[in-house]
Amino acid sequence: MLEQLKEEVLAANLALPVHGLVKFTWGNVSGIDRERGLVVIKPSGVDYEKMTAQDLVVLDLAGHQVEGKLRPSSDTPTHLVLYRAYPQLRGIVHTHSTWATIWAQSGQSLPALGTTHADHFYGKVPCTRALTEQEIDGDYEVETGNVIVETFKKLDINSIPGVLVRNHGPFAWGKDAQDAVHNAVILEEICHMAYHTVRLNNTAGSIQQCLLDKHYLRKHGSGAYYGQS
Amino acid sequence: MLEQLKEEVLAANLALPVHGLVKFTWGNVSGIDRERGLVVIKPSGVDYEKMTAQDLVVLDLAGHQVEGKLRPSSDTPTHLVLYRAYPQLRGIVHTHSTWATIWAQSGQSLPALGTTHADHFYGKVPCTRALTEQEIDGDYEVETGNVIVETFKKLDINSIPGVLVRNHGPFAWGKDAQDAVHNAVILEEICHMAYHTVRLNNTAGSIQQCLLDKHYLRKHGSGAYYGQS
Amino acid sequence: MLEQLKEEVLAANLALPVHGLVKFTWGNVSGIDRERGLVVIKPSGVDYEKMTAQDLVVLDLAGHQVEGKLRPSSDTPTHLVLYRAYPQLRGIVHTHSTWATIWAQSGQSLPALGTTHADHFYGKVPCTRALTEQEIDGDYEVETGNVIVETFKKLDINSIPGVLVRNHGPFAWGKDAQDAVHNAVILEEICHMAYHTVRLNNTAGSIQQCLLDKHYLRKHGSGAYYGQS
Amino acid sequence: MLEQLKEEVLAANLALPVHGLVKFTWGNVSGIDRERGLVVIKPSGVDYEKMTAQDLVVLDLAGHQVEGKLRPSSDTPTHLVLYRAYPQLRGIVHTHSTWATIWAQSGQSLPALGTTHADHFYGKVPCTRALTEQEIDGDYEVETGNVIVETFKKLDINSIPGVLVRNHGPFAWGKDAQDAVHNAVILEEICHMAYHTVRLNNTAGSIQQCLLDKHYLRKHGSGAYYGQS
Repeated sequence: MLEQLKEEVLAANLALPVHGLVKFTWGNVSGIDRERGLVVIKPSGVDYEKMTAQDLVVLDLAGHQVEGKLRPSSDTPTHLVLYRAYPQLRGIVHTHSTWATIWAQSGQSLPALGTTHADHFYGKVPCTRALTEQEIDGDYEVETGNVIVETFKKLDINSIPGVLVRNHGPFAWGKDAQDAVHNAVILEEICHMAYHTVRLNNTAGSIQQCLLDKHYLRKHGSGAYYGQS
Repeated sequence: MLEQLKEEVLAANLALPVHGLVKFTWGNVSGIDRERGLVVIKPSGVDYEKMTAQDLVVLDLAGHQVEGKLRPSSDTPTHLVLYRAYPQLRGIVHTHSTWATIWAQSGQSLPALGTTHADHFYGKVPCTRALTEQEIDGDYEVETGNVIVETFKKLDINSIPGVLVRNHGPFAWGKDAQDAVHNAVILEEICHMAYHTVRLNNTAGSIQQCLLDKHYLRKHGSGAYYGQS
Repeated sequence: MLEQLKEEVLAANLALPVHGLVKFTWGNVSGIDRERGLVVIKPSGVDYEKMTAQDLVVLDLAGHQVEGKLRPSSDTPTHLVLYRAYPQLRGIVHTHSTWATIWAQSGQSLPALGTTHADHFYGKVPCTRALTEQEIDGDYEVETGNVIVETFKKLDINSIPGVLVRNHGPFAWGKDAQDAVHNAVILEEICHMAYHTVRLNNTAGSIQQCLLDKHYLRKHGSGAYYGQS
Repeated sequence: MLEQLKEEVLAANLALPVHGLVKFTWGNVSGIDRERGLVVIKPSGVDYEKMTAQDLVVLDLAGHQVEGKLRPSSDTPTHLVLYRAYPQLRGIVHTHSTWATIWAQSGQSLPALGTTHADHFYGKVPCTRALTEQEIDGDYEVETGNVIVETFKKLDINSIPGVLVRNHGPFAWGKDAQDAVHNAVILEEICHMAYHTVRLNNTAGSIQQCLLDKHYLRKHGSGAYYGQS
């Protein structure tokens, strides 16, 4: 069941160490079959070198495990909140990649300081508020999903495909598992650049709206002219 | 047609990820056959791993595509402005390499803080002014070329083979595509060093003119004595 | 004698350069057979590329060499102090890994700034006090062990599996040699992140106690639900 | 002639890119046969990938080329000044390695902030004064050697096997070419650590003299007990 999706999700998980986004078993990628309403996700705490498609776990959107002998990633409830809230998402990734985590630990949203950012994220990448003690002691991983949804109430999940969860690390998403990883790699790089940009010039602010528009829209939407269409 | 030039431009493009200057499909290198007035450039959004010489696009200096089935890099008009303005250029590269982009995002020109810089760039590497809203909303990639030309009005394109385009990233050039990439690698490294030098000693200024002269001129020009001539 | 332990300790030593924690012969890992009271440790100053299990040195807990032709690591007395003080330790590693050494040189304890830290270290990682001149001129490596023990008088060695020895570098430990190295890799990464977090936001403090509890306890102890148990 | 020395010098030059100390053809290593008074050095501007032992240049201490068809490194006169001034040196290396160059560009000597430094450099690594315009316009590479000698008038070249040439980069030396490279690798790493240590704690000063003594002397001199003797 879902063999192709499993292969895609496996490949996306294996891409994390290749791109230098994870150490050990940190990080997890999921993908969804929207027609069947089934999510495929990495098992918890399994080494990337040993992982096979058969180790992946299949769950429905309510979190019932329908296939796989292993326990799913402990962050699975966060993925499910996002899949339920945003029907257009088909891939989600969570990592503790160095530079995105540094921004998340700083509690600051990532400003759009250049066209590298604008090419992929249409405006600042938000940092969530801190969870309350009640939320942390309650259904923690669900609340992590809820605070992301809360953060995006006035933002567009389609054009800002990632978030910094305060004191924790980044989540990114996309049209499939591979696309989610692609966005996570970019988020890591623009976090790396932005850190040093604001250190070098502490008055460096977000780029002009028209430059943000130009770069984002030449790659995305009906008027895009980047790449081979 | 232009088979040798295509091979050179392909090799120069493939050198970008090897030198760590690009992620994914970011960055593009072109080369020119001055006798025929034809430019060879990377196609837009094609993976480096899959790219072949046949994927490269050939255009005349007015921007008419004369060979190749793929769409050329979206930055092609910037390359063409530079080739038209400076007949001595035979290779151009654009990247979003980390440290050069950090300087470009900071809006600051790169001072010549040591002999590593002086060996290759004869004075500070300028950062362009911000484009106006009109320029961004107009023929953006052409205007990017125009602002580089404006920046070099009182500077020498031959002895300063690169520029920081504000809020965007570096362009570099040379006597062929490989030489342009060579200069881009050096620009990245001197940006890396300069960032940390000014953090370590915020009074560190440009080196003495005589040291700049000594190092640049021992490698370049009629009195050069570096390398095997 | 102790062939399996030797293989484990060899593998753990060889993992140090793989994880980028050491240059040349810097760093050393040991393991212990608690039933026999025998410690296996890296020889002093031997290249990792040439090291074999037969080069490892076997000592009793009093420091008497019982096997091996080579001299043990000069840091051996520090390892022995720790093994004598904490019967639960079965693997110890010392390195001069870059970021942990930077914190050690700064003389500051490492605050728990995020969940990456909290997943593995239950609170700040302490930096020892400076040794006195008398301690340095005396039995230096033993005193290094003693100051670690002194530092942990009011801290829990089990849930904080590492320390920063002031002006020197990190020690880490675990339930075997491999686990000690695992903790050393994590300590290095959280030191890397923490350095930049406090530079980006100098008011960033330790995370909430409830978030620290949540993350540490979902991976450790009787209520853990991370990984496959 | 000097075949073994050539092989050693070639291997030491090839080790530079392996250790990440150079880009392109930057950097050069020499070795000397003290009995014959002949120096073997890298040719100027030759790629490391293509270099063979036959490309190396042999000169006497006065700088007369006695073997080799290629031009020697442009920094050769600096090497010769050092070999003439210090009969105990048998290997010298010059690079533009990133972190040592950053310190050289900052114009600051490198303080001994920890035991990693103390294990190999017995006190601060000095930064030379700026050369005068007359020195730069005169016999520049000879004057570079002279200012190193001037800098070490009250310092011990044996226990501080490297220097930061202001606005330029590091030189390091040793008992042979390989040892010189070994010291250059260490200098680069302690520069890396020291930069971040002083940023993290701007009151971090040099370590206690007794700790410096302890670490340097446990590795060097008649009382050394590190390694296999």
